[in-house]
Amino acid sequence: MSIHSVKRSQCHLAWDNSITPVIRIKSGETVHFDCLDASNGQITAASSAASLTTLVFSALDQVNGPVYVENALPGDTLQVDVLEISTAEWGWTGILNGFGLLADEFSDVALRIWDLREDGFTWFDKEKGIKIPLRPFAGEMGVAPGDDGPHSTIPPYRTGGNIDTKHLTKGTTLYLPVEVEGALFSIGDGHAAQGDGEVCGTAIETMIKATVKLTVIKDKSYVKTPHFFTPHVPGDPQGYYCTTGVGPDVHEATRDAVRHMMEVLCADYGLTREEAYMLCSVAGDLRMHEVVDMPNFLIGMMMPRSIFGHKE
Amino acid sequence: MSIHSVKRSQCHLAWDNSITPVIRIKSGETVHFDCLDASNGQITAASSAASLTTLVFSALDQVNGPVYVENALPGDTLQVDVLEISTAEWGWTGILNGFGLLADEFSDVALRIWDLREDGFTWFDKEKGIKIPLRPFAGEMGVAPGDDGPHSTIPPYRTGGNIDTKHLTKGTTLYLPVEVEGALFSIGDGHAAQGDGEVCGTAIETMIKATVKLTVIKDKSYVKTPHFFTPHVPGDPQGYYCTTGVGPDVHEATRDAVRHMMEVLCADYGLTREEAYMLCSVAGDLRMHEVVDMPNFLIGMMMPRSIFGHKE
Repeated sequence: MSIHSVKRSQCHLAWDNSITPVIRIKSGETVHFDCLDASNGQITAASSAASLTTLVFSALDQVNGPVYVENALPGDTLQVDVLEISTAEWGWTGILNGFGLLADEFSDVALRIWDLREDGFTWFDKEKGIKIPLRPFAGEMGVAPGDDGPHSTIPPYRTGGNIDTKHLTKGTTLYLPVEVEGALFSIGDGHAAQGDGEVCGTAIETMIKATVKLTVIKDKSYVKTPHFFTPHVPGDPQGYYCTTGVGPDVHEATRDAVRHMMEVLCADYGLTREEAYMLCSVAGDLRMHEVVDMPNFLIGMMMPRSIFGHKE
Repeated sequence: MSIHSVKRSQCHLAWDNSITPVIRIKSGETVHFDCLDASNGQITAASSAASLTTLVFSALDQVNGPVYVENALPGDTLQVDVLEISTAEWGWTGILNGFGLLADEFSDVALRIWDLREDGFTWFDKEKGIKIPLRPFAGEMGVAPGDDGPHSTIPPYRTGGNIDTKHLTKGTTLYLPVEVEGALFSIGDGHAAQGDGEVCGTAIETMIKATVKLTVIKDKSYVKTPHFFTPHVPGDPQGYYCTTGVGPDVHEATRDAVRHMMEVLCADYGLTREEAYMLCSVAGDLRMHEVVDMPNFLIGMMMPRSIFGHKE
């Protein structure tokens, strides 16, 4: 198996199935990506809040790629195994004008620079003893949409993109629906830490180096929006499988997340639709993974695999 | 300290500040409640789906109480420590007409009876090896609203009620805003297990015996909707503090959950509003605790206490 590389400069500013792939790989091969932060290098460790007022928004949220995966066809699923993620030695969190869950309540921009050189955490306020655990992941992972033309990299889509899902750390697996030949996978928007929601509009934004394995799957056709598996559930080594709903209506996105989990339960465990609905109610958890990348919300239904006992 | 009791028959069918208290206790005293399930005894272990078609809906979701707590005044907070909860030996889950997140997709009622006699779990499907861990809690805990008149016990309110929050198991603490003299606390709607959301509209519904300690707090005026603390976070013994937003607009309820956490962070840790907003973004998790008790959603923002290090 070859290990491929995508450089920092090999990035694009829209999801668009007409963009020429930067590399072509076989299914099951590994790619190493070097990615600037979501400001595309506009914010530096020396930046101040004033730097946010001169940000060129049209240059934000670039993603690195696209990678053409041989044998990927519309209707297939792209399995993305996150093998490694490392961050830069610093990161930033910003409150930007007109962005974030409470945008109407914050008229002034604000910027915080974080020191990421400690092992596993960063100080929020050393004097007060407040510190944030570091759990790096890529906020953007996606494939090209089947619909022609450029699509902004700001919102998440059914094909992924800016899904800003904190659970997608090293050791997790993301599943994306392939809509074009070769899948055309890209990644970016490194985050050193984030909560479910990313409510102020930014996480701890940082440059990342990410290594992922890309595999084409032919028998998982129920993946119509991002699904993922995380083994990183403290006290529950069997981990959680998660389905999502994506869209501008948060209630409908929630319904989609549940519908998609029911499809998995019916297909993989032979449940009736009524049984699947009840199982979601008594054992599945609704999370709001991302509520700020308008116009689309990303809602998750997370199911502990431990309930399936010896079947897993 | 006295231990008080509220009997199964001492219940009411609306939140209403004119209901005569069934007992009067001192702040810090303990009350033992014996509660029928949310069907008010209409469903039995011998029921079938047909039983759901003759349910008297006006008799559902009774709550036991109200308990008058001396020294509780409007503007105070009622601290509810959940000391013990035990369930009956059986429970039920139903898909009811017109109720649940996907109500429009289920025209037929369905009923499942669960055997709750195993230790810590119940079989969903023994042959397939699917089982559900039991984590009993009370779906309804609330105080009387300041607004006069009867209020349905189906939705949650800023004063609690049908909050259906799975996290409120034995050992957790709920905080409710007091709106009338004596608080007038009631409890009911036993659940043996539920996921965040309760998406099909019911959990594993069951009769419960619950023991809670009720304490009046004078210095927690930021509690304007239910807050809670749970120590039951695997791998994180310091637990999570949670604020909520309650209302008919899920987006605005989400914003309220975040606003309320920011108020806690500013008041208890001396953060600026900008700092609190960023902290919620990088470390707080949005959960959808309840999405079916219309017209009101209950959204939670959960913050790990471990980030506060030596301050806790």
